[in-house]
Amino acid sequence: MRAPAIILVNPQMGENIGAAARVMGNFALPDLRVVAPRDGWPSPQAEAMAVGSPVLASARLFSTTAEATADLSRIYATTARPRGMEKRVVTGREAVGEARQALAAGEGTGILFGAERQGLENHDVAGADAILTLPVCPEFKSLNLAQAVAVVAYEWASGEGVPEAFTELSPPAPREDIDRLFEHFESELDRAGFFHPPDKTPLMINNLRSALVRARFTDQEARTFRGAIKALALGRGKARIVRED
Amino acid sequence: MRAPAIILVNPQMGENIGAAARVMGNFALPDLRVVAPRDGWPSPQAEAMAVGSPVLASARLFSTTAEATADLSRIYATTARPRGMEKRVVTGREAVGEARQALAAGEGTGILFGAERQGLENHDVAGADAILTLPVCPEFKSLNLAQAVAVVAYEWASGEGVPEAFTELSPPAPREDIDRLFEHFESELDRAGFFHPPDKTPLMINNLRSALVRARFTDQEARTFRGAIKALALGRGKARIVRED
Repeated sequence: MRAPAIILVNPQMGENIGAAARVMGNFALPDLRVVAPRDGWPSPQAEAMAVGSPVLASARLFSTTAEATADLSRIYATTARPRGMEKRVVTGREAVGEARQALAAGEGTGILFGAERQGLENHDVAGADAILTLPVCPEFKSLNLAQAVAVVAYEWASGEGVPEAFTELSPPAPREDIDRLFEHFESELDRAGFFHPPDKTPLMINNLRSALVRARFTDQEARTFRGAIKALALGRGKARIVRED
Repeated sequence: MRAPAIILVNPQMGENIGAAARVMGNFALPDLRVVAPRDGWPSPQAEAMAVGSPVLASARLFSTTAEATADLSRIYATTARPRGMEKRVVTGREAVGEARQALAAGEGTGILFGAERQGLENHDVAGADAILTLPVCPEFKSLNLAQAVAVVAYEWASGEGVPEAFTELSPPAPREDIDRLFEHFESELDRAGFFHPPDKTPLMINNLRSALVRARFTDQEARTFRGAIKALALGRGKARIVRED
């Protein structure tokens, strides 16, 4: 992989998908991923706005953000709204600079953009490594989706940062392994009665994910933690036997 | 004058004028000037795409480029095509950096954008102080007019870092709290029979700590994880009671 993936999550208007594909073609970002577009796929409106961009022809459709990011290990969530999460916030320029280094080190990198009206959902932001935010006016901050993609794509084409060797020894695990780890952890916590009151469960899950995702577990570490969760959960039976002896 | 004027010369589609006005509103560029738009003025299409941007409401109409630039003393002409002119060529970032300095020194500054299909005419380029060019792919270089305005507007708003609305991360918890978390985690893992073979226990503990420490848990997160560990461990008793019922 040589450029970050642009991932449009639940985009509403085909026109915006097409305009995003066009500007990605302008600025050498070939990897467009579309998650459950409201108006279906393929989209005649997208094709009209893409004016022949090869990026639209090779765009891939996914059902969920998790599927669209499964092969990536570094994810940025684009949002103009602070989400009250313990998560690093970077500018477009910083994100693209980091992405360039990560890609050079072999890390698949993706940038999430939410739907036109409401932006990304909190759970998609919680799963990201960092928040990417653009310097919009507080009084008029609703940026068109394709314009948001445009400025990130422009940053990609503009960067002249010299890639430096990445300090991490092993690359982070692919996101699908991290997602499985989270699901395993949460299902065992749920079985253990950790989530209460129930209406706070999504918030608690987002906070847990937000904290853990910062660790950027390697493959080996993700496996180790799944083993740890399993041990704690299965330990129940074991402890019972010990006590019954 | 506190920001460069954006001057659209003979724009064809009202939609693009409106989209440009929207993104100028997003990125704090208030001064839009429109020279002889093909489809007349005012434009319902522009109003629809501007979604209430105050920039469209205050946009000014001119008949010629000369009239639109009469009060300016520094002009950039945006083009992707070399024109064979002896004229300085700058990137968007350089142009905006220069504009910032010029404006601070009291020089009125404007950036010209040409029509959708053919771009600026040679005589408009010739009259400019410098050419502004964007790093488009030679194979797919036709940038939408409003997207070109977007990246220049974004450059204008960039350089201020992350907006203040985003709160700083809470500081990481003191190391003694993290150490207590680790000890708790490890003692529960030990009770659950996780560490085997025994001679590998120190290595396993080091690997677990090495991974988790990277997350730099806050106070609140450290408490949450201790709660999670406790829930998984005490879940044993809970599971046993359930089974005995």
